[in-house]
Amino acid sequence: ESDPFCEKLGIELVDLGPGTATLELTVTEDMLNFHGTPHGGAVYSLADAAFAAASNSHGTTAVALETNMSYLDAVDVGDTLRAEARETHMAGRTAEYQIPVTDDGDRVATFRGRVYRFVD
Amino acid sequence: ESDPFCEKLGIELVDLGPGTATLELTVTEDMLNFHGTPHGGAVYSLADAAFAAASNSHGTTAVALETNMSYLDAVDVGDTLRAEARETHMAGRTAEYQIPVTDDGDRVATFRGRVYRFVD
Amino acid sequence: ESDPFCEKLGIELVDLGPGTATLELTVTEDMLNFHGTPHGGAVYSLADAAFAAASNSHGTTAVALETNMSYLDAVDVGDTLRAEARETHMAGRTAEYQIPVTDDGDRVATFRGRVYRFVD
Amino acid sequence: ESDPFCEKLGIELVDLGPGTATLELTVTEDMLNFHGTPHGGAVYSLADAAFAAASNSHGTTAVALETNMSYLDAVDVGDTLRAEARETHMAGRTAEYQIPVTDDGDRVATFRGRVYRFVD
Repeated sequence: ESDPFCEKLGIELVDLGPGTATLELTVTEDMLNFHGTPHGGAVYSLADAAFAAASNSHGTTAVALETNMSYLDAVDVGDTLRAEARETHMAGRTAEYQIPVTDDGDRVATFRGRVYRFVD
Repeated sequence: ESDPFCEKLGIELVDLGPGTATLELTVTEDMLNFHGTPHGGAVYSLADAAFAAASNSHGTTAVALETNMSYLDAVDVGDTLRAEARETHMAGRTAEYQIPVTDDGDRVATFRGRVYRFVD
Repeated sequence: ESDPFCEKLGIELVDLGPGTATLELTVTEDMLNFHGTPHGGAVYSLADAAFAAASNSHGTTAVALETNMSYLDAVDVGDTLRAEARETHMAGRTAEYQIPVTDDGDRVATFRGRVYRFVD
Repeated sequence: ESDPFCEKLGIELVDLGPGTATLELTVTEDMLNFHGTPHGGAVYSLADAAFAAASNSHGTTAVALETNMSYLDAVDVGDTLRAEARETHMAGRTAEYQIPVTDDGDRVATFRGRVYRFVD
């Protein structure tokens, strides 16, 4: 399905499976902040998009309740970042996803999120 | 100072003071996700921009270490969201900022962040 | 109602209202870690107890989904820590609580938590 | 090294290596909350103890900056919980640790923490 915000940022779906999703984003000049380094919101948006894709991969609507993000290493313009979402728990109306964000295999950020699932 | 990513999303600085910052974002169609609701990354980017502005307001470079976000209520296209960053602790090389995000005064998300400050 | 774990740690209820709770804990030698400083789990347990009290203050059972904690300043044996829980959002089946932990009025930690409420 | 708070709760060190630590806690009656279920502070204290052990395993003093916890499944009196801390990133003055908490192999909580390391 089309995701206008992902298109706006250039976030691309690489792989999607039951409870898993891999997305990529190449950092461009228009993603920089006033320091001249990539904006935390851009890196987060990649991880959040993977979170949304994986948590909705079962066909049940899921919406974000809580997320947290560790910023671990600097990234540069031209880097292609990869977010790999993995479902680490599901029970009742919530599920948990863990999402390392890597640059050429090196971890640059860590995201964890919890969704509310609209199950009966 | 110009912030390309804020310009790309239309995030606007309303007010800036020592350890405080207020920024706004009007939600547009290109910020929607595949559910047709505003992407979590867009709302986060507003809060994160306020976090960056407030934490760098003292003239000392500060970079994000950790952030967390509670998504509390739905927002719609056309809503103008407001993020008000407030410094709630500073000691040594780190500082903490709390940032409610509101829509017409109603809280729709809560963000807290910790920065690393490049002090000697 | 009695809370065995609070009794075990010496956590005391100071005040309880609809969506609010104030609890206190005096740090003792048996709460120290191998550094000789108060264990993060002891400070967390105080905040978590305030979180549980405030979120269950309406008579509806609420259980913790997600919590996060910022450790801001050192505390010592003999300090009486105060956790003041405040409900900052409630909608549908979840609610959010923010809990500063202070020592003599100075903030030493910040806790935020989200609960799942067993409402029909 | 002795850790009074761990002794008070009965938290036991099972294994310790460079950047890794495994600790266990058997849930007892005095760890229950007013619901009659194990207190979130007890489960957190186990994970936090593993976090402290792993982050100080290199001989450099490390103190907690930020932590977050997902509560995923109920635990009961008599359950032996296991927290396995793993260093997932280290750079400059901070490091990140991820700690699943399991009961008989099933994940019951997830903890992530960031420390400040006293390196020159």
